[in-house]
Amino acid sequence: MAEKITPRATDYSQWYIDIVINAKLADYAPVKGCMVIRPRGYALWERIQQGLDGLFKETGHVNAYFPLLIPESFIKKEAEHVEGFSPELAVVTHAGGEKLEEPLVVRPTSETIIWAMYKKWIQSYRDLPLLINQWCNVLRWEKRTRLFLRTAEFLWQEGHTAHATAAEAEEETLRMMGVYKTFAEQYMAVPVLHGVKTDSEKFAGAVRTYCIEAMMQDRKSLQAGTSHNLGQNFAKAFDVTYQTNDKKLDYVWATSWGASTRLIGALIMAHSDDKGLVLPPRLAPTQVVIVPIFKNETREAVLKFARGLRDALAPSLRVVLDEDDQATPGWKFSEYELQGIPIRVEVGPRDMEKGQVVAVRRDTGEKVFLPVAEAPQRLPSMLEAIQKSLFDRALKFRKENTFRTNDYAQFTKLLDEPGGFIEAGWCGDAACEARVKEETKATIRLIPLEPQDTEGAPCMVCGKKASVIAVFGRAY
Amino acid sequence: MAEKITPRATDYSQWYIDIVINAKLADYAPVKGCMVIRPRGYALWERIQQGLDGLFKETGHVNAYFPLLIPESFIKKEAEHVEGFSPELAVVTHAGGEKLEEPLVVRPTSETIIWAMYKKWIQSYRDLPLLINQWCNVLRWEKRTRLFLRTAEFLWQEGHTAHATAAEAEEETLRMMGVYKTFAEQYMAVPVLHGVKTDSEKFAGAVRTYCIEAMMQDRKSLQAGTSHNLGQNFAKAFDVTYQTNDKKLDYVWATSWGASTRLIGALIMAHSDDKGLVLPPRLAPTQVVIVPIFKNETREAVLKFARGLRDALAPSLRVVLDEDDQATPGWKFSEYELQGIPIRVEVGPRDMEKGQVVAVRRDTGEKVFLPVAEAPQRLPSMLEAIQKSLFDRALKFRKENTFRTNDYAQFTKLLDEPGGFIEAGWCGDAACEARVKEETKATIRLIPLEPQDTEGAPCMVCGKKASVIAVFGRAY
Repeated sequence: MAEKITPRATDYSQWYIDIVINAKLADYAPVKGCMVIRPRGYALWERIQQGLDGLFKETGHVNAYFPLLIPESFIKKEAEHVEGFSPELAVVTHAGGEKLEEPLVVRPTSETIIWAMYKKWIQSYRDLPLLINQWCNVLRWEKRTRLFLRTAEFLWQEGHTAHATAAEAEEETLRMMGVYKTFAEQYMAVPVLHGVKTDSEKFAGAVRTYCIEAMMQDRKSLQAGTSHNLGQNFAKAFDVTYQTNDKKLDYVWATSWGASTRLIGALIMAHSDDKGLVLPPRLAPTQVVIVPIFKNETREAVLKFARGLRDALAPSLRVVLDEDDQATPGWKFSEYELQGIPIRVEVGPRDMEKGQVVAVRRDTGEKVFLPVAEAPQRLPSMLEAIQKSLFDRALKFRKENTFRTNDYAQFTKLLDEPGGFIEAGWCGDAACEARVKEETKATIRLIPLEPQDTEGAPCMVCGKKASVIAVFGRAY
Repeated sequence: MAEKITPRATDYSQWYIDIVINAKLADYAPVKGCMVIRPRGYALWERIQQGLDGLFKETGHVNAYFPLLIPESFIKKEAEHVEGFSPELAVVTHAGGEKLEEPLVVRPTSETIIWAMYKKWIQSYRDLPLLINQWCNVLRWEKRTRLFLRTAEFLWQEGHTAHATAAEAEEETLRMMGVYKTFAEQYMAVPVLHGVKTDSEKFAGAVRTYCIEAMMQDRKSLQAGTSHNLGQNFAKAFDVTYQTNDKKLDYVWATSWGASTRLIGALIMAHSDDKGLVLPPRLAPTQVVIVPIFKNETREAVLKFARGLRDALAPSLRVVLDEDDQATPGWKFSEYELQGIPIRVEVGPRDMEKGQVVAVRRDTGEKVFLPVAEAPQRLPSMLEAIQKSLFDRALKFRKENTFRTNDYAQFTKLLDEPGGFIEAGWCGDAACEARVKEETKATIRLIPLEPQDTEGAPCMVCGKKASVIAVFGRAY
């Protein structure tokens, strides 16, 4: 119930955990750092999968499945890759009652096993591009974990594509960043910045990492999807060459891109409030809940009316009618607010007489009286309005909490109060970036792709000429 | 191409592998016993998932996700369970650069981790029934593996339900066996027997295991789904009790049920032929492929005609138009036969003039000339006819290869030639069952649920009075 949720103003972190636990989205597993995704959380993941998978297929990708276990020697073949992932690996040393000759790593990501297979499958330019995605679980032994946001095991999708030219690989990398942006903004109603990571923040083994970053309600940034141009690094590590159109041999060009159950954390932190979850209608497993209000003598008539409404809505909406007569309507109202169902429809004897229903928006609390015959037309528009309004509100919040300065003292002040995204000049030197991180815990979230005017702007750290305007922020 | 496939009559096992590899359904992974499910195989799995998941949801189940790694001590809590699975476990001993205090087992099945969570979630009869399913990967370190049929890692779904009474658990167990039978027969077009396993063949930890069994073209049996009544075994092992309606405490009753990527193996072996895969239209990722036939001067006109046809079919069928002009039509015909696409539609300049197309059935090779305007109506019926015909053919084959005897000498002869299902009297003694297995490699696949007339029938092994008529067979 709502009273169990710590208000955001009191303790934002606790508020988040309270929502995850009380709305029964996830629970702590007996294994350290692992989570159980409960049915309500998984229903969200199913809708996220469905949305993303549709976008992947529209852009020509197909799904496949590669093994969970990767020979340890594979992980070591790409120098930066092994360095990046070694500290987080879980290792199978025994199987079938015997010690294995070579330890097997539980995949933290699948570049190495996939490129070992691509070596078998790619011979000629005719085999390219190869556009494969996989939905699976991965494991990264993290020290500090938080439900959905950072867990030892998580679910994700990882796309792995192979191309004949550097230009095609770059085009694919950018295309998939765009797909993630579309998904975040149009499905999740979460506005995102897109851009490129600095070298110190890029994927271990990538030439270049693009990302989308969203601002949460505590003004911290959350990386919601990454798309990597891997150049020929993995092709060289696994010796994957192809015969070009003009009979030469060249290494294949690669990309990879992923998004995970972390998106559920982003959804929660972008929209929810002190009463519980707030879900964008496009991803809400249930969009409308009908709560009938009756006494014993009106029970049958009201239920009949409510069932008629449900049947009228069912073809176009995901609707549930709560016929339970143990719980009170008031209890149900709080419960469905906690669960984040976008619209609650109340129907009582008086509404019935007037041929109307009351629709209550979860996001604003606004009550609207609707003639029952108009509900099948008007509720879908109301859902669209909620979807748009959540996006607009989040965008407004981000804009209000995005600042620009080239003054390091002001930068640290802004970071602490109010917090947010801070655009600031940066010379491009990793030392300046590292100093900011060490002193303020803020990192460069991304460098925007749009042409920038750096004329006259200094690096906010060293004062030398800025080569870019970077977006800094503290992040999840 | 077709010429690479070993005929069934020459070597059935090799025929199967040739189809899996040449139709690009799966490939061998670098890790022993593991497979890569390639895009064409995974597209089949996606359709299987979609079909089964729909049936699970219709019967009130929801999906969730539980962790991959299970503390070793959990597996040991149910005596029969640990005995059954110990030899097949893969164990993570190191993670995050350190040796773990307790080794973690990669799930071979999830009863133990799920019942550890159910202990947290179930307090009262109001929390029951709990009807949860999960789609995931599992690992069983098998010595002898075969693509799809038996691999160290495989994908599956596992349902885990909790109930207030023994009767409800039994009802659920039977319901899910029914769901598997419906899926096998109506989606896969594979007729199955259903029944109960003997004690020696049941799931490790179950009170009773129900199953469906299908006959493959080599007359061997393939277990295609199992549904277990677990009684209170796991509730007792994990101390999961609930408060009953009348305020008493009782242990919860459990079921579990699963089906896996093995179903893809069953699909292949039930219907395919020496030219390649034959897929039931309901599960075929592509149902109709259009192959245009043209010369340079007719190319544009034929393609235009073919595109019109594709657009007319697309709303109701999964259709692909092959516009590639490098490969010859003949090459394409063989390729799509190999891939098992149920209907190939040929369109050439002469067909175009006559306003007709040629539709060729993959299962029978039958050619039908259709007025192009009628194709959107007639092709769907043709697909239905194929679906039905595959089922009927498989059912006829099973009937022709099902025998009845109570004579052990005749039994062994029939098993060797022609092979198949043999119904025979059995006294119920495990020793007689074990003797048959040792001497003939045949096992009791199931005991039918329907009331049986055992009057006067002897156990075919010991000659004592038969308590049941069991179905014997050699199996995958």
